[in-house]
Amino acid sequence: MSLLIVGTVAYDAIETPFGKTDKILGGSAMYIGLAASKFVNKSNLVSVIGDDFAKSDVDLLQRFKMDTAGMETIKGGKTFFWSGKYHIDMNSRDTIETQLNVLENFDPKVPSEYQDCEFLVLGNLSPSVQMSVIKQMEKRPKLIAMDTMNFWMDYFMDDLVEVLKEVDILTINDEEARQLSGEYSLVKAAQKIMGMGPRFLIIKKGEHGALLFNNKEVFFAPALPLEDVFDPTGAGDTFAGGFIGHLAKTRDISFDNMKRAVIYGSAMASFCVEKFGPERLTEVTDAELHERVEEFINLVQFDISLINS
Amino acid sequence: MSLLIVGTVAYDAIETPFGKTDKILGGSAMYIGLAASKFVNKSNLVSVIGDDFAKSDVDLLQRFKMDTAGMETIKGGKTFFWSGKYHIDMNSRDTIETQLNVLENFDPKVPSEYQDCEFLVLGNLSPSVQMSVIKQMEKRPKLIAMDTMNFWMDYFMDDLVEVLKEVDILTINDEEARQLSGEYSLVKAAQKIMGMGPRFLIIKKGEHGALLFNNKEVFFAPALPLEDVFDPTGAGDTFAGGFIGHLAKTRDISFDNMKRAVIYGSAMASFCVEKFGPERLTEVTDAELHERVEEFINLVQFDISLINS
Repeated sequence: MSLLIVGTVAYDAIETPFGKTDKILGGSAMYIGLAASKFVNKSNLVSVIGDDFAKSDVDLLQRFKMDTAGMETIKGGKTFFWSGKYHIDMNSRDTIETQLNVLENFDPKVPSEYQDCEFLVLGNLSPSVQMSVIKQMEKRPKLIAMDTMNFWMDYFMDDLVEVLKEVDILTINDEEARQLSGEYSLVKAAQKIMGMGPRFLIIKKGEHGALLFNNKEVFFAPALPLEDVFDPTGAGDTFAGGFIGHLAKTRDISFDNMKRAVIYGSAMASFCVEKFGPERLTEVTDAELHERVEEFINLVQFDISLINS
Repeated sequence: MSLLIVGTVAYDAIETPFGKTDKILGGSAMYIGLAASKFVNKSNLVSVIGDDFAKSDVDLLQRFKMDTAGMETIKGGKTFFWSGKYHIDMNSRDTIETQLNVLENFDPKVPSEYQDCEFLVLGNLSPSVQMSVIKQMEKRPKLIAMDTMNFWMDYFMDDLVEVLKEVDILTINDEEARQLSGEYSLVKAAQKIMGMGPRFLIIKKGEHGALLFNNKEVFFAPALPLEDVFDPTGAGDTFAGGFIGHLAKTRDISFDNMKRAVIYGSAMASFCVEKFGPERLTEVTDAELHERVEEFINLVQFDISLINS
């Protein structure tokens, strides 16, 4: 197995009703890699940083099994920076500042040693950057998953439509699914979106869980009801990292195994939101992960004998 | 078993993005009774109507196993009327008109032949009316379930607090749970609300499913992802009717059986929203109900071997 993650490595400054942080480590590739590290022995990172990026943060990525040879450092450049503020419902947030910095001219290069890629995850990036990565792959990966967001639908829909034709799984949130499809019903939205390319679709509904679709089945995983959601930053990418990590570990892309992957992704996301940024993810033990998955089982399992009903 | 349902029998005029109706049959007790009729052979209704209430509608209630001896007709009075309009997201609605009519002075009287009540459901009514019913019961029912709404929290909180002390299960929606408890987190809200009396709490989240709590367990049932939600009117009451109907049929109030009851309630609610008002509920066959429950099983079941994970 080899897992290739393409996305951002960033600094975030976050304010929630529970407190605020100065610059902390962020970025889609970082969250995906951190979550995947609970499942795989190694992931390869293609990203870009500035020379302000701390050595200790590179060390952290490597400690969590991310190969950083594909993470380009731009001399004199500054790392992508985002700051935002969450409201009490944690489902809405205001962006206070976005400094694209080195991300503005990001031209990802897939190192030759990453060409043995079986599982490719394209974090939320411009569709043309995502397409450039796919085109660089000499052999098509077994599975290509991608994330996107409303911004690309608003301004780069044509590019997005092209890249959607090339991927196996799309992960987006419910509002984005509605925007992308023009359908309010998520069932109808899913059918339309899968008609655009992806064989599988994951619709993330935040605190309301996630739906996994293929062309004839649907699976739902709830989010774990938590006492507090401390900071939702990165939860979606963490979900994707746990999801793809489990698939890459097991090398099984059957729908039944994808269901398991959704549960592992949901479990990892439920840790992510417990502390600021990636902090909680760096502490998750195997025992805790087992326990969390058991909580999911207990949360949804019921036993109905349809014969007697 | 005997099931006693106290609530409204009404006429509704409904507008949704899919169309609009003139006066059609509505009311919490009607929806609860209709859903329960899939599970029990008889339910007893305590409600109030005006003499404008159509004989054909009385016939419908009776055809669906509701005993109407406890449904008082006020001479010269008009039946409770509500009209509302739903927006595209179907989660928000505007009330166009509410005519309390005979509901304004509703003073429910439990007939002596309804005193053998094991399962009592109090639909959304003023807390003092709900309390009056509880006080009329010579022997405490095995299980008392009640519904309420934000209006009573806004204006009759003291009365609501008193009646909450007397019931076993409260069913409310997520916003109401937050308002009642003053907690945003539904987990914390549930703990606080159960501290006010009910041993069990069901938080209904509409299209996002329902949570069942007791003091140490939690169970989640999703709503079935539907192509279209045609008209959500009565879905919450239908859920309650399916829930209590299954409990009354099985006479088992263990948490495991309540989980099943939540699934049956969710299945009935998923039918309710498919057509205007109660129309779809009057058509549900046993085979359809079985099939729908199977869809729920398929929607959430997954198989993780924690030993190998």
